[in-house]
Amino acid sequence: MPTALTLHPDRALPSEPAARALARRIYSHTAALPIVSMHGHVEAQALADDAPFGDPAALLVTPDHYVTRMLYSQGVPTHQLGVGENPATAREIWRTFCNHWHLFRGTPSRYWLEHELVEVFGVSTAPSAESADALFDQISAVLADPGFRPRALLERFGIELLATTDPAASQLEHHAKLAADGFGERVIPTFRPDAVTHPARPGWASDVALLGRAAGIDTGDYTGYLAALRQRRNAFVEAGALATDHGHLATDTTPLSPQQASSIYRNALDGELSAEAAEAFTGHMLFVMAQMSAEDGLVMQLHPGVLRDHHPGAAAALGPDRGWDIPVRTEFTRSLRPLLEQFGMDPAFRLILFTVDETTYSRELAPLAGVYSAVRLGAPWWFLDSPHAMRRFREAATETAGFYNTSGFVDDTRAYASIPARHDLSRRIDAGYLASLVLEHRLSEEEATETALDLAYHLPKKAYARR
Amino acid sequence: MPTALTLHPDRALPSEPAARALARRIYSHTAALPIVSMHGHVEAQALADDAPFGDPAALLVTPDHYVTRMLYSQGVPTHQLGVGENPATAREIWRTFCNHWHLFRGTPSRYWLEHELVEVFGVSTAPSAESADALFDQISAVLADPGFRPRALLERFGIELLATTDPAASQLEHHAKLAADGFGERVIPTFRPDAVTHPARPGWASDVALLGRAAGIDTGDYTGYLAALRQRRNAFVEAGALATDHGHLATDTTPLSPQQASSIYRNALDGELSAEAAEAFTGHMLFVMAQMSAEDGLVMQLHPGVLRDHHPGAAAALGPDRGWDIPVRTEFTRSLRPLLEQFGMDPAFRLILFTVDETTYSRELAPLAGVYSAVRLGAPWWFLDSPHAMRRFREAATETAGFYNTSGFVDDTRAYASIPARHDLSRRIDAGYLASLVLEHRLSEEEATETALDLAYHLPKKAYARR
Amino acid sequence: MPTALTLHPDRALPSEPAARALARRIYSHTAALPIVSMHGHVEAQALADDAPFGDPAALLVTPDHYVTRMLYSQGVPTHQLGVGENPATAREIWRTFCNHWHLFRGTPSRYWLEHELVEVFGVSTAPSAESADALFDQISAVLADPGFRPRALLERFGIELLATTDPAASQLEHHAKLAADGFGERVIPTFRPDAVTHPARPGWASDVALLGRAAGIDTGDYTGYLAALRQRRNAFVEAGALATDHGHLATDTTPLSPQQASSIYRNALDGELSAEAAEAFTGHMLFVMAQMSAEDGLVMQLHPGVLRDHHPGAAAALGPDRGWDIPVRTEFTRSLRPLLEQFGMDPAFRLILFTVDETTYSRELAPLAGVYSAVRLGAPWWFLDSPHAMRRFREAATETAGFYNTSGFVDDTRAYASIPARHDLSRRIDAGYLASLVLEHRLSEEEATETALDLAYHLPKKAYARR
Repeated sequence: MPTALTLHPDRALPSEPAARALARRIYSHTAALPIVSMHGHVEAQALADDAPFGDPAALLVTPDHYVTRMLYSQGVPTHQLGVGENPATAREIWRTFCNHWHLFRGTPSRYWLEHELVEVFGVSTAPSAESADALFDQISAVLADPGFRPRALLERFGIELLATTDPAASQLEHHAKLAADGFGERVIPTFRPDAVTHPARPGWASDVALLGRAAGIDTGDYTGYLAALRQRRNAFVEAGALATDHGHLATDTTPLSPQQASSIYRNALDGELSAEAAEAFTGHMLFVMAQMSAEDGLVMQLHPGVLRDHHPGAAAALGPDRGWDIPVRTEFTRSLRPLLEQFGMDPAFRLILFTVDETTYSRELAPLAGVYSAVRLGAPWWFLDSPHAMRRFREAATETAGFYNTSGFVDDTRAYASIPARHDLSRRIDAGYLASLVLEHRLSEEEATETALDLAYHLPKKAYARR
Repeated sequence: MPTALTLHPDRALPSEPAARALARRIYSHTAALPIVSMHGHVEAQALADDAPFGDPAALLVTPDHYVTRMLYSQGVPTHQLGVGENPATAREIWRTFCNHWHLFRGTPSRYWLEHELVEVFGVSTAPSAESADALFDQISAVLADPGFRPRALLERFGIELLATTDPAASQLEHHAKLAADGFGERVIPTFRPDAVTHPARPGWASDVALLGRAAGIDTGDYTGYLAALRQRRNAFVEAGALATDHGHLATDTTPLSPQQASSIYRNALDGELSAEAAEAFTGHMLFVMAQMSAEDGLVMQLHPGVLRDHHPGAAAALGPDRGWDIPVRTEFTRSLRPLLEQFGMDPAFRLILFTVDETTYSRELAPLAGVYSAVRLGAPWWFLDSPHAMRRFREAATETAGFYNTSGFVDDTRAYASIPARHDLSRRIDAGYLASLVLEHRLSEEEATETALDLAYHLPKKAYARR
Repeated sequence: MPTALTLHPDRALPSEPAARALARRIYSHTAALPIVSMHGHVEAQALADDAPFGDPAALLVTPDHYVTRMLYSQGVPTHQLGVGENPATAREIWRTFCNHWHLFRGTPSRYWLEHELVEVFGVSTAPSAESADALFDQISAVLADPGFRPRALLERFGIELLATTDPAASQLEHHAKLAADGFGERVIPTFRPDAVTHPARPGWASDVALLGRAAGIDTGDYTGYLAALRQRRNAFVEAGALATDHGHLATDTTPLSPQQASSIYRNALDGELSAEAAEAFTGHMLFVMAQMSAEDGLVMQLHPGVLRDHHPGAAAALGPDRGWDIPVRTEFTRSLRPLLEQFGMDPAFRLILFTVDETTYSRELAPLAGVYSAVRLGAPWWFLDSPHAMRRFREAATETAGFYNTSGFVDDTRAYASIPARHDLSRRIDAGYLASLVLEHRLSEEEATETALDLAYHLPKKAYARR
């Protein structure tokens, strides 16, 4: 007998009756707010082309590393997820996913997937070995409906603003098409220069050459490299970008002298670079990016502390960033100091800090965001974008940083269809936290409701306003 | 007037009425499950000899470092616990313990001891200066009953499987006797090679010689040493062992070349070893142990991050590991990488990771266990085997690793009589956590009950199944 | 329309009805207990002079870095807080503060300020742009009342004992006046030698000279320096001091040989000091201070792990310690080992440990305090003196250290008028935590009440009793 799948209207709200009633009232004010999605991984091309999504597996399983990593962790072989020799078909992948539905108990993936299945696809049966084929057919039929194409979903999902993530060398042609079609205000690019700021990465030299070509500037020396970066930042600004995004393993921001930077740059192009020099250059470039942000007003986002592709075998078989990205201990107080000494109190600069190392919330990030006017503390990121982790974030950060030094909710979606679920979950958790403050008589209900509206909508818009 | 001692049936369950009712229902399904105790410190000899336990102090106070450290922390002198000159008698030790009963408020020791006193010994009065003598007499009388001998307690406690911890050089003679008496399936050894994998430890050379003698293989060179380890592992496998256990200060797993390892081994035997070389060898041996586990299928347990015998004076007076073992910050992501690159996705290998550094749950351990098919995340260990710490573990680990990448409950008992209390507490805490998920509509009650059964019984059996 | 400001009698107690009722009962026993304030930053001079407090801004805003850092974090320029050119008037500063009242939502400052406004100043309207002027006038009127002078407030606040913080070179003249006026038992000094134990600090040499002058001993060499420290410690003891206080960035306690220490000291006076030598000397002096505490019985407090004046520009404009003090990761297990090897089990020594790195509670501090008889774990400090952080502290520390290895509540006030609010909040949070243990049947209500009295009053008196 199939298990019914429904969404309880009070899901993820506190369970104690008085807290639930109050949280429900607070949530009722934010539930239908438009979505501001400032840090997504939806491809601009998907929206530019507006082609129908593929099958259920291609939409909900294979692109979502939260889902695939859980399956791999229990020994599902790669071919069962469609990779390598004798790859499984879409329907077989979907069956494998449904067979392992119990693995997601207690995870945010489960919350998001339930929300998507019910709200987006009208599913009313839980995934299981028995229900797999019927669900595959049902979702496939929905995906064939023109009302479920990428652009239509913007409307259906209530997305007011969607920022994509684009390499520095991008020509932004998809955004140009979107602008030409009237979506220029709604879908904007984000400047992501990681490929050209990490000289230790394989392919760095060719990425720098690409950057030069995109900018029409020779990147054969450090001066040209900086000029090309500036040119692309300006092109992003003109295309509507509000922010840059930086994924670094460490958070060092020590600036080099132009001579040092120039010399390392030359050695890097010549393929004669020590690991230390490469690291120093990468840290230096965070400082330089802050400098350029203080000039052009792009909000700077920093997402540090993840060791990518921990398992080389998996990276070779599946490509980069497929689930074996593992956090490491992260330090902010000392390493951000050079950058903050220079720009931390500069009204022309904005830095939004994310982490996957929760220990830094109360020890480093809230104290920093609670005094530096340029700094805002971003929402819980990646593994921490989950009910308990969001609660821990509020409890650890609010008492020192308050609410108004945080960015409000920022999703980090891999799966387009999960954006509404992620925002919905965040609004519920914040309603629950605010309700607890009201019930402890630390806040009035009016203040709590106003704060909930700010966290869900006004603060992200304010935090990401170009300076 | 003496204070009554009773066990409330709802102890350690959530206190909010709806949560309690639900948790009680879930717990009712696991309360009477058999105990699978995969990481105990009960001596095999106690079960082989099946001699009566000594007095109440010898059973409940002096062998339990949780208890003695608390007494020392408030200035109780060692002789009052029976150590050194003019040692106290058993009755005097028991009085000292009862006089200090208030120190245990809020600790898991209190929970375990109450459970033992009431359930095992039928005590109905709380320990105090006034009740001490009567309790001593009452417990002594129970201990004299043949129904309270070690083997009888296996039955009384519902212990289906008990793994002891045995040095690599053990001849396993007590396990042989147990097997001969029909307990071979129920009481099994665990292979613990720490004494021979840490060349920096005093006594290493003689422990290596012991290993050689036990194996009948000359350990005069590195090849012989490896062969002797293999021989002993096979002997443990034949005696029913399912697992190995490794207590390391650091978690480095960088392999050395055979030449390097061989040369360090030789220097160590010659007493000419630098601290760096000793550390490198110890890390290398974790890699080698993983390699052997991938061959012989023994499940590998790693318990890192405790600085043993922090206070040399206490170690000199009381012996090793008597309470001054203090955790240190622990790193897993980088240090386990060499091992996991090689064996992390190997179906023939299983690694169960424990920690006393909670910061690693959400940052490192859950992400690792949530993708590497060989890895399971062990239960909260040592200081963290307590109500609040167990809740924090579930809240920090589940959202990334799920339930099914954890080992289920594993106790680390020092005191035989506390095994049922520890399992009972864990089942209550898990019931409470699962109830909270149900009340937040993130899980159905059926799923929660199934998961509770898995955590209490099926997952430990599965996690420790020889590969 | 102005918003009413009232204090709910159940504020900061748990919200679930049964937990609240029980917590209220427990709190009712501690609410009116006298205040023992062992770590304040009230100036002895304020009490010696007993001059009226200034205006509302000077009492409640400008001296309180919790308040000013929040305003700076949202871009309030320094002149609006009365610093630099065209400084704002007291009334203007107060208006700025009231305009930004919403920033404090969810922070402990909000709790403390509400308590002060209502309880001390009889305010019944929430701060806002509209109410600012009326509140300014109302508070100013109260401050003009002789019943609100510093000494009168001791009585009004129920402060039984107030320890100030005084530099080692202090002549203690204000304490002498207080003693002459009959306040010698009630207001006592604390010996704070940081200025003379950190040779890397600018001004160290002149501070050492001041020390020598105060002691009447030539500090031209290391022997004289030690003798001067001893002389001042004795003077503090004679003035009623119970404790010393040490603020160090690191917690290293490795002793140097007298020759090494002497040589570094000489080089420091000569202005020829490496950073490494300065650090080594500072760590050495922690060991020496412990040694002197074991001799003279002064309780040693350690407050480590804060990087002071992270933003040099702010320090230049505003002076030291004005909000840009940011915590760093802190290590205790290894770094305290030399000190604890020597004095950790010494009945003549007492060490109270504080931290702003919460990760150390369960990993290092509770295990250390739970076994070393000389060690007590201090109350949550600075950023952690807040409702959620206090709960996390109890949950993380109690299960390993128990209650009786903690110091009970110790405030770290900047703002004299906030002392009662801080103690009140702590008593409420502890009542809530104890109530949860009772409701989980881990403690009886009688035990919980006794423990609450201990935490609020008896334990601080006991922890700070001179040995």
